Order: sequence, then structure tokens, then C-alpha cells
Amino acid sequence: MKLVRYGAEGAEKPGMMVGDTLHDLSGVVDDIAGDVLSDAGLARLRALAPSDLPVVAGNPRLGPCVGSIGKMLCIGLNYSDHAAEAGMPIPEHPILFMKATSAIVGPNDDVMIPRGSTNTDWEVELGVVIGTRAKHVSAAQALDHVAGYCIVNDVSERHYQTGLTGQWTKGKSCDTFGPTGPWLVTRDAVPDPQALDMWLDVNGERRQTGSTATMIFTVAQIIEHLSGLMTLHPGDVISTGTPPGVGMGMKPHPVYLQAGDVMELGIAGLGKQRQALVQED
Amino acid sequence: MKLVRYGAEGAEKPGMMVGDTLHDLSGVVDDIAGDVLSDAGLARLRALAPSDLPVVAGNPRLGPCVGSIGKMLCIGLNYSDHAAEAGMPIPEHPILFMKATSAIVGPNDDVMIPRGSTNTDWEVELGVVIGTRAKHVSAAQALDHVAGYCIVNDVSERHYQTGLTGQWTKGKSCDTFGPTGPWLVTRDAVPDPQALDMWLDVNGERRQTGSTATMIFTVAQIIEHLSGLMTLHPGDVISTGTPPGVGMGMKPHPVYLQAGDVMELGIAGLGKQRQALVQED
Repeated sequence: MKLVRYGAEGAEKPGMMVGDTLHDLSGVVDDIAGDVLSDAGLARLRALAPSDLPVVAGNPRLGPCVGSIGKMLCIGLNYSDHAAEAGMPIPEHPILFMKATSAIVGPNDDVMIPRGSTNTDWEVELGVVIGTRAKHVSAAQALDHVAGYCIVNDVSERHYQTGLTGQWTKGKSCDTFGPTGPWLVTRDAVPDPQALDMWLDVNGERRQTGSTATMIFTVAQIIEHLSGLMTLHPGDVISTGTPPGVGMGMKPHPVYLQAGDVMELGIAGLGKQRQALVQED
Repeated sequence: MKLVRYGAEGAEKPGMMVGDTLHDLSGVVDDIAGDVLSDAGLARLRALAPSDLPVVAGNPRLGPCVGSIGKMLCIGLNYSDHAAEAGMPIPEHPILFMKATSAIVGPNDDVMIPRGSTNTDWEVELGVVIGTRAKHVSAAQALDHVAGYCIVNDVSERHYQTGLTGQWTKGKSCDTFGPTGPWLVTRDAVPDPQALDMWLDVNGERRQTGSTATMIFTVAQIIEHLSGLMTLHPGDVISTGTPPGVGMGMKPHPVYLQAGDVMELGIAGLGKQRQALVQED
């Protein structure tokens, strides 16, 4: 099942993709958020007959595929090749940082290069949407707490991330730095989250190619670790790290995004995103 | 004006303290959150005659003094003496980290020592509640965007903060690690946020004594810096760092919290908090 949120920013309605057709769910649920993400909530949506749901005409904007995201937890250096390109050792535990939820936008919204920024970079990542409360869960039980998966572009300003006196969150939380979607693909439709090919292009040139098969910490291990530190709530999103090929690691020198550039990125089964870069005034 | 949220966790009602009397505001506003925090929203509350507002009998639990906190931005090492006790250099810019909003609790709620933790520590801090959207605001204009101030106890697990492979947020985001309140004191009642005495006791012994006068970066400078990185929204809270006297810095060796301990802390004009420590199962 592919769930979406469509419409104007801040006024998104819930919807469901059936094939290429968008059906409106606003007569059934208020949002793709909270209790709707539980197994029972998703089962209720799965039981609907698409033919009973209004078809949404045209091609509306898509918002982030989850509403009311409580926290966006991000894992750093979770692909061994990416850790190598960043010149960082393989971490002993999942490296956690947070992205401000105010940075989250729709999958095809413009991404703003912050005023004065010269080091804005891309990161295709597998996003994990929590469906039910998780605290101290084992890796063996962890995926039972997942509603589904989506694409996250963990857009990053590398100077802000490490050159403004400490803690990565500064370079991860700029407005528009969290395109999320297009779809929340429920976990029943993603039998193995550790076998998903992923890619990212800038202006049509392939920059990142990877697979979740090469994660250092699996989705289940990440949930075990994080849920040992804090409660994960329905609608929390975990972005699980990026494979090699970010601009920071390019040779002979780093290459960063500029206004007018276009990022396209995708993960097998989870659709794709497209963002144009614009310069903040 | 002193605004509060009272009642059971997750079902708090808005209220106003007039002297020692709690008045209910739930007939006037839904919550102390969002637009209610704007200058116009606060002016509307200020114009109310307390005699027209129901008095709340008894001594109900207080929740966090702000509802629907979008992000809690925390500044590290913002008092020169605290940086010295932590063995860290004076930062060039405000050090930013985030505390998960799921950690936020009421001012007198129990604080849980995480399962297996041996390094849980205290930090009395001045909390700044954003009232109106702020992006690229100058220090000179910054305080116009503040709804008011409150106490935050930035409870911290020191091993999780630095010993679990990077990024402080791990040690700052455990459940119950963000007591916030008791009151949101509106900015008109805090003429100078850089002249507030603050203190924290553990089991009746004074551990922290300080004043916001010794901040490295003022509230206005912090807002200028953060609003240059990301939009600050109504209901965001900035916790502005802690003065000397944390357990980590005690001599001859660090002293950390144990189940049964009691923290009491206060800031001049902003009331006080009291938390008992309990052990997570």
C-alpha cells in the first residue's frame, strides 16, 4: 500500500496510490499520521475498496508522506563506503543526529541553498516510519514497530555541519533540507528493507549508487539501539544514512549544489523524488 | 503574565497564574501554543479580567508550559565557567544540539534514570519560547520574536552524550530528560533576560549557582545565529546553556544522579521545578 499526502503546503490531505491513480482518503482518515500508522490503522485502509474512494484529478503537489512528524532521527556514516569517502572510521554504534522537523518538505518541492552557503550537498536515504510505540525493543521485534518506508533526501550543508563550532544538526536542519516521500510504502510491501537499490542524479548525472544491503547497522539494529535510548512514537521518522557518492567526497575536489541544479533520486519500490535548487534571498 | 498548562499528561489545559491562584483559560484558548504565543495572542490574554476566569481548585499537576513544541534547540557550553569545568574551549559560535521533543515533561514530573545508566546529570537552563516566526533576524530585533521565558532542566546522560559514537543528542533525548516550566513568563515581565539568577540543588545541597549575565552568547545573539540557519516557529523552545556546577565537573570525581535523589531548581522570576529521580525498569 502506497500512502501519500497531497495538496498545498500545510493543508495536505491523505491519499492512496493505486497503480498510477491517486485516491482521496480524507473521508476516511484525517491524515497519514499517528494512530493511522498502527497495524490496525493500516489494516483498515487496506480493507477499503479503491473503487469506493474518490479519484483525485490532475497532478497535485505531494507533501511529506507522513504528517505531524514528531522527530526525525538521522543516522550518520551508516554505509561503509560512505564512511570511507568521508574519511571517518566505521562507527561502533549507530551515529545519531537530529534534523529539525521544520526542514521537512514534500518530495518534489524546491530545495533552498541557504543565504551565503557554498557547501550544500545531497544524500539519498531510506526513511523508516515508526507505526507503533517502541521502547527497548530487540532487533528481532523491531520491524514489527515499522509502519513503512520512504525516501528521504538528507540535504546537508557541510560547512554548517562541521565548521560552525560543533554538532551536525546545524548543517542538517536548514529549511527545505528534508524532502520526504513521495509515498509511505507499508512494510508488507517491502519484504526486505536490506535489499533495496538506491540512486541519486544531479542534472542527469549519476552521483550516488548503492544498496541498503551495505548498511553497517540494519534498520532493525538501528531501532533496537535508538529505542534503548528513547521512546519512538508513531510518526517518528528515522533516516538511515547514505551510500557513497556525495558531493563532499568527489574527486579531485568536492562539488556542491548551485541554484538551477536538479536532484533526482530513488529507491527501488519507493518511487522517486525531484528537487530544483533555488537560492535563498 | 504567567501562563501554565495543567492536568494529566497529554491532556493539559491552558491556565494563567494570578498571584498564587490558577485560573483556567480553556474557555478562551485551546492551548498555550502556536498563534496564542504571538504578540496579538498574548495581548488578548492580557486583556482578560482574572475575575472572569474560573479558579482551578486544588493543586493539579503542571505539564510543560508550552504545547506542541516543534523543536527544542539547545545551546552547549554557553557559560564560560561551565566550558572550563567541562574542559572545553570557549566556542566561536553558539554550539547547537537538539533534544527530542519526546523527552519534554512537566516541571515537577519524575525524571527517569535510563536502564543501565550511571551518568545522569543535571543542568538548570533559561528556556526561550519563540512567539513569532523568525528567519534572519538581527540581534537587535531578536527579542521581539520571543513570547517569553521558562526554566528547562536539560537532563543529560554523559556517557550517552559522548561515549556512544558521536553527537550529543543521544545523551539529551532520553524520556523525561526535558522538564519545562512551571510557567511561561511573558517577555514584558522579564525586562532583562541577561540578569537572571539561577540555581539548582540536589537533595537540598546547592550544586549550581549562576546568572544569565555570564552567558557567552546572549539570548538575542543566539536567536540571530539560529534564525540564520533555520526558521524558528511559534512554540519552538531554545534552551540556552547551563552555568557551572554540573555533576560531571565535581571534584575529586564526578557525581551523578541516583534513584531517590531530588533535584530542585529555579530562575529568578520564573518559578522553580522539583523532580524526583526514579529508575527505569
